[in-house]
Amino acid sequence: MISGHTQVCCLLADPVEHVRTPQMFNAYLETRGADAVVVPLHVPRDELRRMVEALRGVRNLRAIIVTLPHKIAIVELCDALHESAQRVGAVNLVRRDPGGRLVGANFDGVGFVAALEAGVGPVAGRSVFMAGAGGVARAIVFELARAGASRIVLCNRSQQKGEELLRRVRQAYPATAAACVAAPPDDCDIAINATSLGLRPDDPLPFSVDALPANAAVAEVVMQPLMTRLLRAAQARGLRIVTGDGMLTAQLPFWMDFVGFDGSRAADAAAHHDAAIDR
Amino acid sequence: MISGHTQVCCLLADPVEHVRTPQMFNAYLETRGADAVVVPLHVPRDELRRMVEALRGVRNLRAIIVTLPHKIAIVELCDALHESAQRVGAVNLVRRDPGGRLVGANFDGVGFVAALEAGVGPVAGRSVFMAGAGGVARAIVFELARAGASRIVLCNRSQQKGEELLRRVRQAYPATAAACVAAPPDDCDIAINATSLGLRPDDPLPFSVDALPANAAVAEVVMQPLMTRLLRAAQARGLRIVTGDGMLTAQLPFWMDFVGFDGSRAADAAAHHDAAIDR
Repeated sequence: MISGHTQVCCLLADPVEHVRTPQMFNAYLETRGADAVVVPLHVPRDELRRMVEALRGVRNLRAIIVTLPHKIAIVELCDALHESAQRVGAVNLVRRDPGGRLVGANFDGVGFVAALEAGVGPVAGRSVFMAGAGGVARAIVFELARAGASRIVLCNRSQQKGEELLRRVRQAYPATAAACVAAPPDDCDIAINATSLGLRPDDPLPFSVDALPANAAVAEVVMQPLMTRLLRAAQARGLRIVTGDGMLTAQLPFWMDFVGFDGSRAADAAAHHDAAIDR
Repeated sequence: MISGHTQVCCLLADPVEHVRTPQMFNAYLETRGADAVVVPLHVPRDELRRMVEALRGVRNLRAIIVTLPHKIAIVELCDALHESAQRVGAVNLVRRDPGGRLVGANFDGVGFVAALEAGVGPVAGRSVFMAGAGGVARAIVFELARAGASRIVLCNRSQQKGEELLRRVRQAYPATAAACVAAPPDDCDIAINATSLGLRPDDPLPFSVDALPANAAVAEVVMQPLMTRLLRAAQARGLRIVTGDGMLTAQLPFWMDFVGFDGSRAADAAAHHDAAIDR
């Protein structure tokens, strides 16, 4: 029951119809007994700054959840970045502290890798292929390296953007071999779609699953539809699959902890202050 | 269940804790099967313009509900005014048409008078006292005159503001006798609090009920607490009372009709276009 005491979280997206976050996080908040609600707002790219500046002044706003296409653009609108967002250069959750300070975080990486490992076992020592170098991809690739992937190869529409991302990964995790490629190599253990291809029914496949070895797994970030064309193609070949919804559900406890919804807003802000670095 | 298809209505208020609109309208929307939700945003006075300009760009925003202290300031932020708001000079509901056109309306007056007449019978021919000349008061006073009140006397902290309001009432309804007074006269049939006094526990009474005749009725616009000090004082004297919640519940069908929540947004906008005059 939404009332004047409810803490509000706005989800900013464009398009907005496909989002699953309000359903999932509202159900999660309810099971935790939090008087808080997530509301989706359809905000186009060129309206993002105006909306974030307006939300900064809303006293009962607790967080801004950010998804396609805003995860990178929101970074410069934050006042500080939690350690989860600092290397990544993309943000998917912004906490509004009392007074309007906005602290950006990114739990896409930990969420995705947690769901992936729950589905197909540890990432450590595995060879991973990933399509994409956008907001979600950035978060995932750093977390794959942190989890000990032996090799990460990446395919991106803009190869320059892909190379730049991998340069930063190698800098942070020198033990991880990382390179740009055109397609999944035939010795790849895990192939990941971290682009938005699959959201629309007539999207091309982000990559071909034909050359993947028989014991490979294919994982998605797209969660609407849950069974994308890519996952259906992988399934048809008998490969293991990991659907995109796991990335989100595995993040919810991290969101809950980062934002806090227990009414002790000031205490939360203080507790998290150490981990956030002013921009 | 809030999803990416949900039509969003933001309620702008300061303070926000006391509002009842989200509870009431969300329950009403649910009984009508509308996929829409009202979310309260605590927006201070000096943030109103920024927020309204940002909400104008939100594609799934269907309406902005406005309450204390924004009902007058929002008028100049609207692109057009529905006939219900044109004379009143205050707005409590803004419809966002496709493309971002904002049309202001005001159903406080019809809601209040409908609830008043349901409680104590027709206003026609009755002598009415009212405290206040702010956003809600303006809406009510025009509707009292339209409903045929024989005399309207008004008490306001700023007498100049009260005189100006009554001048406009006399202009629109020459048959209604209207004057500013310091306290409820002893021949008054209905005494109305249209100020926010009563919202806070230590507020003074908006007026004294001591001089009111025994058959008078006392009506409130404050709905949190429902039994204000004024209503308790009236009840202690044995006077009839009308609580503030009726004004809101009686408005909901008007809101539903004005905004429309059946998905045919363009058709709604066209249907209502004739009644709205561009500012």
